[in-house]
Amino acid sequence: MQLGMIGLGRMGANMVRRLLRGGHQCVVFDRSPKTVEELARDKAVGASSLADLVKKLHKPRAIWLMVPAAAVDQTIADLLPHLEAEDILIDGGNSYYIDDIRRAKELAPKRIAYVDVGTSGGVWGLERGYCMMIGGPKEVVQRLDPIFSALAPGAGEVPRTPGRETLGGTAEQGYLHCGPAGGGHFVKMVHNGIEYGLMAAYAEGMGILRNANIGKQQHHIDAETTPLRDPEHYQYDFNLTDIAEVWRRGSVIASWLLDLTAASLIKDQHLSQFSGRVSDSGEGRWTVKAAIDEAVPIPVLSAALYQRFSSRGEADYEDRLLSAMRFGFGGHVEVPAK
Amino acid sequence: MQLGMIGLGRMGANMVRRLLRGGHQCVVFDRSPKTVEELARDKAVGASSLADLVKKLHKPRAIWLMVPAAAVDQTIADLLPHLEAEDILIDGGNSYYIDDIRRAKELAPKRIAYVDVGTSGGVWGLERGYCMMIGGPKEVVQRLDPIFSALAPGAGEVPRTPGRETLGGTAEQGYLHCGPAGGGHFVKMVHNGIEYGLMAAYAEGMGILRNANIGKQQHHIDAETTPLRDPEHYQYDFNLTDIAEVWRRGSVIASWLLDLTAASLIKDQHLSQFSGRVSDSGEGRWTVKAAIDEAVPIPVLSAALYQRFSSRGEADYEDRLLSAMRFGFGGHVEVPAK
Amino acid sequence: MQLGMIGLGRMGANMVRRLLRGGHQCVVFDRSPKTVEELARDKAVGASSLADLVKKLHKPRAIWLMVPAAAVDQTIADLLPHLEAEDILIDGGNSYYIDDIRRAKELAPKRIAYVDVGTSGGVWGLERGYCMMIGGPKEVVQRLDPIFSALAPGAGEVPRTPGRETLGGTAEQGYLHCGPAGGGHFVKMVHNGIEYGLMAAYAEGMGILRNANIGKQQHHIDAETTPLRDPEHYQYDFNLTDIAEVWRRGSVIASWLLDLTAASLIKDQHLSQFSGRVSDSGEGRWTVKAAIDEAVPIPVLSAALYQRFSSRGEADYEDRLLSAMRFGFGGHVEVPAK
Amino acid sequence: MQLGMIGLGRMGANMVRRLLRGGHQCVVFDRSPKTVEELARDKAVGASSLADLVKKLHKPRAIWLMVPAAAVDQTIADLLPHLEAEDILIDGGNSYYIDDIRRAKELAPKRIAYVDVGTSGGVWGLERGYCMMIGGPKEVVQRLDPIFSALAPGAGEVPRTPGRETLGGTAEQGYLHCGPAGGGHFVKMVHNGIEYGLMAAYAEGMGILRNANIGKQQHHIDAETTPLRDPEHYQYDFNLTDIAEVWRRGSVIASWLLDLTAASLIKDQHLSQFSGRVSDSGEGRWTVKAAIDEAVPIPVLSAALYQRFSSRGEADYEDRLLSAMRFGFGGHVEVPAK
Repeated sequence: MQLGMIGLGRMGANMVRRLLRGGHQCVVFDRSPKTVEELARDKAVGASSLADLVKKLHKPRAIWLMVPAAAVDQTIADLLPHLEAEDILIDGGNSYYIDDIRRAKELAPKRIAYVDVGTSGGVWGLERGYCMMIGGPKEVVQRLDPIFSALAPGAGEVPRTPGRETLGGTAEQGYLHCGPAGGGHFVKMVHNGIEYGLMAAYAEGMGILRNANIGKQQHHIDAETTPLRDPEHYQYDFNLTDIAEVWRRGSVIASWLLDLTAASLIKDQHLSQFSGRVSDSGEGRWTVKAAIDEAVPIPVLSAALYQRFSSRGEADYEDRLLSAMRFGFGGHVEVPAK
Repeated sequence: MQLGMIGLGRMGANMVRRLLRGGHQCVVFDRSPKTVEELARDKAVGASSLADLVKKLHKPRAIWLMVPAAAVDQTIADLLPHLEAEDILIDGGNSYYIDDIRRAKELAPKRIAYVDVGTSGGVWGLERGYCMMIGGPKEVVQRLDPIFSALAPGAGEVPRTPGRETLGGTAEQGYLHCGPAGGGHFVKMVHNGIEYGLMAAYAEGMGILRNANIGKQQHHIDAETTPLRDPEHYQYDFNLTDIAEVWRRGSVIASWLLDLTAASLIKDQHLSQFSGRVSDSGEGRWTVKAAIDEAVPIPVLSAALYQRFSSRGEADYEDRLLSAMRFGFGGHVEVPAK
Repeated sequence: MQLGMIGLGRMGANMVRRLLRGGHQCVVFDRSPKTVEELARDKAVGASSLADLVKKLHKPRAIWLMVPAAAVDQTIADLLPHLEAEDILIDGGNSYYIDDIRRAKELAPKRIAYVDVGTSGGVWGLERGYCMMIGGPKEVVQRLDPIFSALAPGAGEVPRTPGRETLGGTAEQGYLHCGPAGGGHFVKMVHNGIEYGLMAAYAEGMGILRNANIGKQQHHIDAETTPLRDPEHYQYDFNLTDIAEVWRRGSVIASWLLDLTAASLIKDQHLSQFSGRVSDSGEGRWTVKAAIDEAVPIPVLSAALYQRFSSRGEADYEDRLLSAMRFGFGGHVEVPAK
Repeated sequence: MQLGMIGLGRMGANMVRRLLRGGHQCVVFDRSPKTVEELARDKAVGASSLADLVKKLHKPRAIWLMVPAAAVDQTIADLLPHLEAEDILIDGGNSYYIDDIRRAKELAPKRIAYVDVGTSGGVWGLERGYCMMIGGPKEVVQRLDPIFSALAPGAGEVPRTPGRETLGGTAEQGYLHCGPAGGGHFVKMVHNGIEYGLMAAYAEGMGILRNANIGKQQHHIDAETTPLRDPEHYQYDFNLTDIAEVWRRGSVIASWLLDLTAASLIKDQHLSQFSGRVSDSGEGRWTVKAAIDEAVPIPVLSAALYQRFSSRGEADYEDRLLSAMRFGFGGHVEVPAK
């Protein structure tokens, strides 16, 4: 099948490569001509402009946008004059699903189909395949099936879920039509929300293990600090690298994120390359907003998001106010960092 | 009534002053002779040693310890050779209630009574009176009633709770016999746990108000940061000092902690005198442990405690691990602080 | 001063009464003629329709809407044909501040001023006065000062915040111009968010106190339940009614919400009149959304909101999924309620 | 190697089977003679009493206890008269690591070694192998290596962590000597704490997906309920079974717990077999206590624990108190369940 790809960053370029390997034809465009040339060397058809890309595609066209979320609307606006009814636009980036709903509605009168695809797999997708959550009209998604099938990981060596034998569908291949417009990015949004929670759970547990030798430290006693009641209970110098590794086999908490944790710790158990300022993307925030609209309690996912805010110093004013109150009612003075 | 007071720090000294004002006699001791002298000038009877203090008290004696929690057991051990059956030991500090239970049991064979008193009121107690939560044997607590009555705030100008008229008891006077040994410090422990939650609630709210002008800031766009969707919704430069003040009158969230907040903000709305390293005392931690033993969910009180840990950098390793995972699955690099 | 009041529910009617007591003239309308009659007996001027209300007001008019948030836009639309430039519309209900921003913008071309007022004080406002947080153009808010001044609690017996003497402004009177359109409801929104946190802090603490006798219970031992390690530490039968009362005097956690708690417990310490399904209003939800947009961590306020969701059974599916996973990895079967 | 096994419940019996398959000799005892007989048929050597078991073992003996945590101390006491210096006691159950520290200390004068083993793998261990976290003296743990090696999963098909090639050690085989006495159960404790967090993250995410059709429902409007602002954003009827499945391949959140989730949902997407009363074991609670002693913030793991408490109705009193306060300040009446 033929696909146009706009946006050849790490994600877009690797997707094209995976599609080419799968025997598909790709017409590609990026604002950077150099990137286009590189992929052309890999047998993609390079385009010199959006108009050129559209012209090089057979009708009805299928065009995949892999551009920053903030650039999607402008790219669609620029493409629109060149498109015709029955063409398909696919947003494979990190759009807010609410924008998908709007775009699908805006494109409907022109009979241009809009498909939203949330992808997980990051920098590993070229090798492992991309897990794809897809929203849009059923028949359009089916038309694109060869593309999704080629990009997806496939069943691979992951054991079949008991009971799946008779169910059919594409979920086992690592891609899924989740629902109408926005459905793909909605599911991807929640996926990332869960991801935040999982990551925080591992990080908190590792934090406890790392401090398990706190009983060995001489504590300076001051009125502002509670002494450790039983120092003999905290005398462990745990090897976090080995612990992450041992959990990878046979334990209930084995996961791909644990695999990554083990790999990170093997490089440097102290993680001194990192400062601990953790970014959060839109998905984690939107997940909380959706849960609130739905009245679904999500204390874990929210706590994980807030920890990221705090990691960037966003709790500083709150903290100073706490110190001010403590000074106000008890004359407590802050204890400086050691 | 006569009372021995050991420990003349800010709390102990002011309690003695309030008792003297109330017409009681106080025999006082502190490791610092200068402090003893100062109170002697206020008509307290100074003692030169624990033995001297005991000697100067009528039998059966009532001795109030106002020493750091870590020093209580040693002080009792030093006093014990001088005490006799029917004497009363009162721990007015911040002991863990579990230690109270143990001490009462240890002192029982000697027929020395043990009373634990949790006090709230801090540096304001001399003027406002001390709110006291008391644990110990009923008849002993009753024997000490003149002392508690003098230290307590009394009914004051706080309006009577509807329905209280016929109930009797001392709660309206600001002191209460809560239960057997440890009961006073247990209730004080939970009091402090609640205090953490209340403080955090105000701090978080103020944090939101303070950032309500975030839409005015020029945001550097990078792939790691979600742009603010509706900057026009965050254009408010709120005067936090005035807002804290207005809430003090007629609002549902009026409280003494809000009074203190208002007073702090009036001095400096930016609180730049504080660094935001917030100490936590034992009570906040013990509250969580008790709740867990009792299987009572306390997400708010726990979150308030953890925020204090984080304010002191205790989440740093967790945060670095989150960054490491993000680098692992997506090649995400940390965005440095501006 | 003269004011039109539309919506004579509990809040609107009592506001009119307080204004009449303050010597102001009120023209009132409500869909229920009976309510209009009742207030007419209290010397308000009754109106038979929106048009009639507008006609009975001097120009430039000031009209206060005290209708459900969902009805504000329609009421404004119905009023609009009768209004003229320089008239003032005041929304005193619980509007989302984002709607205020929109309305002010929509009314601007007609030169009709829009003022948003968040009020706290609930059913107690008639006696205590209404704490008001106000958004809108400065000169319009100043024009309405006599109204706000009459509705507000005034300085009352609340002690002056140290440092306030030289500051001036109306905050000490219990009302405040917070900022441009939406600023009043924004501050009120955060006020309610804080309220949720405060309420939860008290509730959690009381929950711990109530279960402090758990060591007295005979526990059925099953493999799914951890036995209490030290039952002798949980032998307290606390009197929650008295404890809430004692904290009202001199303690750090005294507040109006504690006053209400004490009053509730005096009626029935077991609160058996209530089922524990806790509603949440929009403000608590919007507070979380605003914090997320601003990247301000608010674990406490969020936890308080989620607890309300859970109280209404909204965590049930999550809980069933946890049970399903436990069954999956360990064969654990749910222990039925006793 | 030869091992004595006491306690032939699901875990103990399957461990024996796995050891027998690995060519080891097992002497087994259980209070139920029938269970002993069953394993004897599988070529284990049955014992009729603790004394008999000890007698049938070569010196120095290695005896593995797989009994409920509450029964470990008594079993050790019963065994002790029959044991000799150099014998090894292994506690493979769910003991609190603090008990391990105590036991090791108590057994030291008798020169009986104590080893604590936390195992993960549950009912799947017989086939997958048991992930083991081990505490105790280094040389003793090494002596038991053949046993651990046989019980462990081995490297299996789990891909090697990059960088592991040169590290050596047993972690890759799925078992690890973590540290001195208690170290095994400490690490297992934290493992379970993480497990709670992971499970909650998935459950919360699934909860959001399940309610994503809330915009389709007709909402009864009452003053106590906020209407959904944008119902058109919540029109999705997601197939949770397929979504769990698609995430198993190539996504960042793939894990064994997700595998189990997918398997549970395939049986019944509504999980109607479960009531949602979620048990918690000691490990989750102890994890929080350890974190508090260490001052490590763990909002996620704590929230996950509290949700379990709430699932069993343990928040009911708190919730009723919230309703009582709302009634107190605003006259709000609870909205009954539909």
